[in-house]
Amino acid sequence: MPRWEPDAVGRLQAAAIDLFAEQGFERTTVAEIAERAGLTKRTFFNHFADKREALFGPVSERQRELVVAEIAACAGSVSPVDAVLRGLQAAADVMFEERRAAVARRREIIDANPELREREWGKRAALADAIVEALRARGVDSGTALLAAGVGVLVQQMAMRTWAEAADGRPLREHLSDALLSLHAVIGQRSV
Amino acid sequence: MPRWEPDAVGRLQAAAIDLFAEQGFERTTVAEIAERAGLTKRTFFNHFADKREALFGPVSERQRELVVAEIAACAGSVSPVDAVLRGLQAAADVMFEERRAAVARRREIIDANPELREREWGKRAALADAIVEALRARGVDSGTALLAAGVGVLVQQMAMRTWAEAADGRPLREHLSDALLSLHAVIGQRSV
Repeated sequence: MPRWEPDAVGRLQAAAIDLFAEQGFERTTVAEIAERAGLTKRTFFNHFADKREALFGPVSERQRELVVAEIAACAGSVSPVDAVLRGLQAAADVMFEERRAAVARRREIIDANPELREREWGKRAALADAIVEALRARGVDSGTALLAAGVGVLVQQMAMRTWAEAADGRPLREHLSDALLSLHAVIGQRSV
Repeated sequence: MPRWEPDAVGRLQAAAIDLFAEQGFERTTVAEIAERAGLTKRTFFNHFADKREALFGPVSERQRELVVAEIAACAGSVSPVDAVLRGLQAAADVMFEERRAAVARRREIIDANPELREREWGKRAALADAIVEALRARGVDSGTALLAAGVGVLVQQMAMRTWAEAADGRPLREHLSDALLSLHAVIGQRSV
């Protein structure tokens, strides 16, 4: 009989991040992750398809759900790109704001490994797809939805970096709106 | 002794696209691809690490090289986003313009398969990294380089779709500059 496992997912993810940071992603086995978490390999595979998923797993799904719910909740007068920004900000407040140190460590682990980066891009694609669908449900045309979703993914990527690196204590939601302004400025710099 | 293989890579890629379109990506084996191309499995693995790479392989590398070379060749007065656009346009002219039908078929195959989409996002990440590096070499700050590279990847993605779907015969380079204008317009639509 499996023993009672309070927050097995959270413990496995924390153990995975610790071990990946200590000894590298490649050199860490699922058995080691499970052991560190005080759980079994079997429990690991009940929750994650593979070692990579321990870094992504339910976080990405939850983020998508929060972003999509917020986009759907925006008044009809809110523009596509603002609806996307509000969606990302809602997820930021709930999921990331209190976990800056953990997010920064996770960032370093992913950056160091091409396999993890590929998986991260896959998750970004899934987020973009979910945003496209949420915008289409608001009556946004598919071209605009694709661009606004792409903007969202890019702004999220940029803001997570500046927020994790910054020592100013400003919340992630502000880094998100700043990233959108910076993006607008960069695109507006035309030399021809 | 392996026989002489004129353009083995091109033949293997064409055979892979044909078979993936005919019977699906999952159901196609490397042995079938090699047979269709009149080559051996061994030759396949001399050129590609796996089945997925037959859809990407040297195309992605070549695109990166052309984009980066064009960015490096731009005058110092060209803005980051314009340098990126010119890079993408240079690659478009050389690599894609004459191959619209093949590009559209390849698009459908990738869209139908999550594994292929993940790999494509990995290739986009590699393109973004290469653009960041090329911009940094021009003295662009890292934040601007990251955003301009993200814009490039998004504009490329959008333009490839509209160009492949459009019946107007306008060249891909024009779809690329249109996508950049559309992106600017979408980001400029602020409701708050």
